[in-house]
Amino acid sequence: MADQEQQQQQHDASEEIVLMKSEEMPQGTPIIKGYDFNAGIDYHKLFQSFLHSGFQATSFGRAVEEINKMIACREEPMKQTDNLQVSDKISVKNNCTVFLGYTSNMASCGVRETIRFLVEHRLVDCLVTTAGGVEEDLIKCLAPTYLGDFHLKGRDLRMKGINRIGNLLVPNNNYCKFEDWVMPILDELLREQKEEGGYWTPSKIIARLGKEINNKTSIAYWAAVRGVPIFSPALTDGSLGDMIYFHGIRNPGLVVDIAEDLRLINQLAKRSLNTGMVIVGGGVVKHHICNSNLMRNGANYSVYLNTASEWDGSDSGARPDEAVSWGKIRLDANPVKIYGEASFVFPLLVGETFARHHHQQQQQQQQQQQQEEEEEEQK
Amino acid sequence: MADQEQQQQQHDASEEIVLMKSEEMPQGTPIIKGYDFNAGIDYHKLFQSFLHSGFQATSFGRAVEEINKMIACREEPMKQTDNLQVSDKISVKNNCTVFLGYTSNMASCGVRETIRFLVEHRLVDCLVTTAGGVEEDLIKCLAPTYLGDFHLKGRDLRMKGINRIGNLLVPNNNYCKFEDWVMPILDELLREQKEEGGYWTPSKIIARLGKEINNKTSIAYWAAVRGVPIFSPALTDGSLGDMIYFHGIRNPGLVVDIAEDLRLINQLAKRSLNTGMVIVGGGVVKHHICNSNLMRNGANYSVYLNTASEWDGSDSGARPDEAVSWGKIRLDANPVKIYGEASFVFPLLVGETFARHHHQQQQQQQQQQQQEEEEEEQK
Amino acid sequence: MADQEQQQQQHDASEEIVLMKSEEMPQGTPIIKGYDFNAGIDYHKLFQSFLHSGFQATSFGRAVEEINKMIACREEPMKQTDNLQVSDKISVKNNCTVFLGYTSNMASCGVRETIRFLVEHRLVDCLVTTAGGVEEDLIKCLAPTYLGDFHLKGRDLRMKGINRIGNLLVPNNNYCKFEDWVMPILDELLREQKEEGGYWTPSKIIARLGKEINNKTSIAYWAAVRGVPIFSPALTDGSLGDMIYFHGIRNPGLVVDIAEDLRLINQLAKRSLNTGMVIVGGGVVKHHICNSNLMRNGANYSVYLNTASEWDGSDSGARPDEAVSWGKIRLDANPVKIYGEASFVFPLLVGETFARHHHQQQQQQQQQQQQEEEEEEQK
Amino acid sequence: MADQEQQQQQHDASEEIVLMKSEEMPQGTPIIKGYDFNAGIDYHKLFQSFLHSGFQATSFGRAVEEINKMIACREEPMKQTDNLQVSDKISVKNNCTVFLGYTSNMASCGVRETIRFLVEHRLVDCLVTTAGGVEEDLIKCLAPTYLGDFHLKGRDLRMKGINRIGNLLVPNNNYCKFEDWVMPILDELLREQKEEGGYWTPSKIIARLGKEINNKTSIAYWAAVRGVPIFSPALTDGSLGDMIYFHGIRNPGLVVDIAEDLRLINQLAKRSLNTGMVIVGGGVVKHHICNSNLMRNGANYSVYLNTASEWDGSDSGARPDEAVSWGKIRLDANPVKIYGEASFVFPLLVGETFARHHHQQQQQQQQQQQQEEEEEEQK
Repeated sequence: MADQEQQQQQHDASEEIVLMKSEEMPQGTPIIKGYDFNAGIDYHKLFQSFLHSGFQATSFGRAVEEINKMIACREEPMKQTDNLQVSDKISVKNNCTVFLGYTSNMASCGVRETIRFLVEHRLVDCLVTTAGGVEEDLIKCLAPTYLGDFHLKGRDLRMKGINRIGNLLVPNNNYCKFEDWVMPILDELLREQKEEGGYWTPSKIIARLGKEINNKTSIAYWAAVRGVPIFSPALTDGSLGDMIYFHGIRNPGLVVDIAEDLRLINQLAKRSLNTGMVIVGGGVVKHHICNSNLMRNGANYSVYLNTASEWDGSDSGARPDEAVSWGKIRLDANPVKIYGEASFVFPLLVGETFARHHHQQQQQQQQQQQQEEEEEEQK
Repeated sequence: MADQEQQQQQHDASEEIVLMKSEEMPQGTPIIKGYDFNAGIDYHKLFQSFLHSGFQATSFGRAVEEINKMIACREEPMKQTDNLQVSDKISVKNNCTVFLGYTSNMASCGVRETIRFLVEHRLVDCLVTTAGGVEEDLIKCLAPTYLGDFHLKGRDLRMKGINRIGNLLVPNNNYCKFEDWVMPILDELLREQKEEGGYWTPSKIIARLGKEINNKTSIAYWAAVRGVPIFSPALTDGSLGDMIYFHGIRNPGLVVDIAEDLRLINQLAKRSLNTGMVIVGGGVVKHHICNSNLMRNGANYSVYLNTASEWDGSDSGARPDEAVSWGKIRLDANPVKIYGEASFVFPLLVGETFARHHHQQQQQQQQQQQQEEEEEEQK
Repeated sequence: MADQEQQQQQHDASEEIVLMKSEEMPQGTPIIKGYDFNAGIDYHKLFQSFLHSGFQATSFGRAVEEINKMIACREEPMKQTDNLQVSDKISVKNNCTVFLGYTSNMASCGVRETIRFLVEHRLVDCLVTTAGGVEEDLIKCLAPTYLGDFHLKGRDLRMKGINRIGNLLVPNNNYCKFEDWVMPILDELLREQKEEGGYWTPSKIIARLGKEINNKTSIAYWAAVRGVPIFSPALTDGSLGDMIYFHGIRNPGLVVDIAEDLRLINQLAKRSLNTGMVIVGGGVVKHHICNSNLMRNGANYSVYLNTASEWDGSDSGARPDEAVSWGKIRLDANPVKIYGEASFVFPLLVGETFARHHHQQQQQQQQQQQQEEEEEEQK
Repeated sequence: MADQEQQQQQHDASEEIVLMKSEEMPQGTPIIKGYDFNAGIDYHKLFQSFLHSGFQATSFGRAVEEINKMIACREEPMKQTDNLQVSDKISVKNNCTVFLGYTSNMASCGVRETIRFLVEHRLVDCLVTTAGGVEEDLIKCLAPTYLGDFHLKGRDLRMKGINRIGNLLVPNNNYCKFEDWVMPILDELLREQKEEGGYWTPSKIIARLGKEINNKTSIAYWAAVRGVPIFSPALTDGSLGDMIYFHGIRNPGLVVDIAEDLRLINQLAKRSLNTGMVIVGGGVVKHHICNSNLMRNGANYSVYLNTASEWDGSDSGARPDEAVSWGKIRLDANPVKIYGEASFVFPLLVGETFARHHHQQQQQQQQQQQQEEEEEEQK
């Protein structure tokens, strides 16, 4: 057979493979299409277009849908009204309990203001964070965190007493101010423990610190005011731990019991009628929220936002579908993971969900009030 | 020495270390503060707040600044007006030549519409992309790309002839339609080569395809109309290559010369008065733009947007500072890298820079026109 | 000026830039050179070649050096011999205290056997891990963990009661067996607390569980036998927490105090003559070891091994140089971070350091013994 | 109902959920177990244990299996012996054609020596790399690459004329030496093109450069000697491009045709009886090998090794299962992706596969030869 002919035959084979016919796509399959800037700059519409833009834009769009379902469920009237009390301070207050988890760096960066907004208006029901997530919020009430650079030399900074968190800088004086502020409170906590019996738990200490800081920029303050519990099982692992340690050398005896807090978060999950999880970052905050939702056979609504991937087998990087296998997310749920960096993504996610909902509601209430006032006047 | 005393002494040592005093921060160091949603949802203000929010929010804020400087420089009058011609088709047309690089997946996802907008209004001056970046744009004029899921099984899809790109789906029929459309054009290209002499280059082929597609949703169409060259040195590495290959078996002879295109992009960089680089993704598109800017001792303005990190020594993950060492970015530049996923980040980046600039300009022109018309009427 | 000439001039300019002369490299700068497989397959030599292979091969090579320095320092005689006691159970026993941190997934995967080896031969002095890091080790003594796949469907697994951890599978029966085993121990712990006073802490509970499991494949067992403390501040965040929770509903009262454990780890760091940190993974295990080393103005030797990057501002992704700014790593230290996945990298790192050292020492002891026996015989 | 009872009931519900019974694991499901260092340090056994260690250790173990299958298939006698010629230089020579792809940084770092070994002993059949992958190998024959650090300042380096690649340093003088060496060859290529007609292609240029460099440390040298084609469709995108560009200004006319090379690699894939892909890194090298294997309805054996993840929709990060949907990997294949950094992982992967196989074969041949000689002597 001539090489020419052979080539022709082979060609046909290749071309058949490469150009094989495909089945029709199912009716209604969304078509990929991005935002058209010729229509002007309307970010709300742009964010809506993300659902059908592919990749993580789609994940963002799906996360907006998921959180908005969470909010809608939360606003529905509660069918069951007994058995909602978890402790004297904590109870199930809505038809869907929203758990918000965030790592320490979220309090260090500008996401703090977003979280404070969520708590101030009680748009979420339970927070879980790390020690740093607690103390960085409090310390910012005493002295600011500054913008730096990821590549400033550790040695130079240490010589000046300036601590680096990514591209943020926290002067060590801030921690000195924290000590001045927190030590008398620790004295008080110890005194109360001795006098009144019982033990402190991370959530009780945080609630107390939130009350004491008495500062409207603080997450912990609003959490105390609004009755939103903040859980932080490893509360000793940070500057607050340093203070507890130094304090304990001079005045030993403060007990920080994590068994009691576990009971509270698990009971809260269990007695909730529905639950939603919004988890920003990984580590203990991610696992702790998921694990408490295992008590109720899984969360109903779930959004993860982090930069980790699954291939190292870490819980931080695990996709929501791994949590489904454990019963931490329900079988019939549609959980979403956004792979992205939260300082950038989380405020936008809140803008399209909780904040939008809140402002719409505010507007409706104002309009209603106005209408009522007008009707009143007309009478 | 009693243990109590020892402890006290050690305690003092630790406390001194942990609570060492810090130097004052330099006057004017920005303070970290996030957006306050109590002020309503104003995304433009939110994006402005990102500059001082830390982490990648700050990178985004800095990238907005860098691109806006690029645009301002581009709008300045050109001091030098000779020696701007690169070829009969390509010349330096602005005071700052903006190179936009993007990988194939950007044409597959909804970012395509953003890039098309940039080219339609000639807000950028030169594109560099991969073979897929060219063909996915063209194929979308023939048939749509659909939304799928990252975890659909390859085997099931192959049985149906449906190709997956991340969470996108492209029916194989789309490539069949592409073949029907492109084969006669390849015939024509070969005919012209034989009749008129010379060789084809990737940029010439792409310009021709852009003209032929004649579709206002297409990047390549607008690039052809607006005279924006698209370089793609490995043009054969994709479906277009498959077509060139199949075509060549039946009608051999088409030459795709990359040496000539290299001359063009290098000359364009060299003759440019200033240059800006906006590079979305890694691989050849990143390196090619940087390397051409080496010819002029570095770009003046640079923004990278990708998900890769430096620790594997890849050019894709390299920070801009690596390009400074090579002379691909100027010593006095302030280049920015955003670590983020472009389907989500790039439209927002364009919204705060090129699109905002374009619409402001449009508005000014309309107002001026209106004013002139009013003045005309008043006469 | 003719275009030809202009081109020539421009050319010269570009060529000058591109081909600028460089300074000589400093004498002794290592040259990049990989392993030559023509010399046969000698992995020890291959690993030695990594130091000068670049990228993460070099990071591995440097980590081997750093850990070997840590070991050498640990073997030196202790100059100070008083003030080494931390508690009745914990004391400084070597010239360099080696802290090993690892996340839960390390106990789930095959790295467990590597860590057990390190503890069995007391090559490390203090462990910090998460709740999962404790319980997965114990549960493996009761029933095995299986190999699965990252892409098994959560729904299918849940229906079968099989839990997924990355590409591992843990049948839920394993946790039932864990309950059967641990409940009587929790009864006992509560009884002791009530009868003897005082409170339990995570490290005390873990030491007790290690003793009770009485199984030579277990990390916790050997830690109990060798007197290596295991700290785990968020011990309630996992299956052990579930058990403590269930137990507490029926038999309330168990207190798990984390303040006391904080005192122990901080004192251990502070009284140590030198310290080394080997931290596998991120989250609380990374921060907790670093934070305790702040008490002594920083660790002397440090190796991080994880997959996280710094750009999200997380502590997990932070480079060692960030810890230098905080005083958690000494100013004069040469800390190393390996970007890599630990199931693969950690056993190899131990092979070139702790294990190699241990077996060399064993060999020397055997030879010495043999020699002594021979000398004995000859007499 | 009393709260106590309710609690009990709820408790039972939670406990039932958490402690649900699981199905039995299928017989023969591998149990997770790591290497036991008590058995001494035997890296070959350690690597064998990786298959059942979980996470990326398992991926490595599976990749070893996949490559060893590839090798076994390659060694089998060829059933078809006609139609194996692709061009006068290139033909199918084994029962399985092994494509090895690698990015530029692999030639820059110590992996170069590993690749050279593979080519020297013709253990692979076709290379695909980037421009840098070609030139960095050649330049190392002229002057060394040095070890540096990821955080050296770009500005300082540029002032000294030292280029950084991750933690490697390449003095600019190396590129000057490259110019001195390559320019006369380019003169010669142009002369031949003019005199003999036809055009150059990347693979032909690389083969010529490999021959000219005449240096046994070079990949390109051995590729030329062993008749292993090296494809590099974007060959102009690097220092070699700079040289072609400078050369072209003085001596225009050199044509670098990528259409012809496309025909060669596609034909090679198509005429191969079986194929294996080993792809180190992403970008054009990954896509180009996969795309050529589409011509034959997919590769039989595939291993990816890179650091990229799928969630950004990039081809670089795509899992093998995405290639299955395209027909680039066969439906019945068992492709493997290792998430890892290649400077570290690739030499180890070669050690357990190609190198081990080569040395075993060498040993067998030697033994056979010895035996034959002994038999000869005995006669």
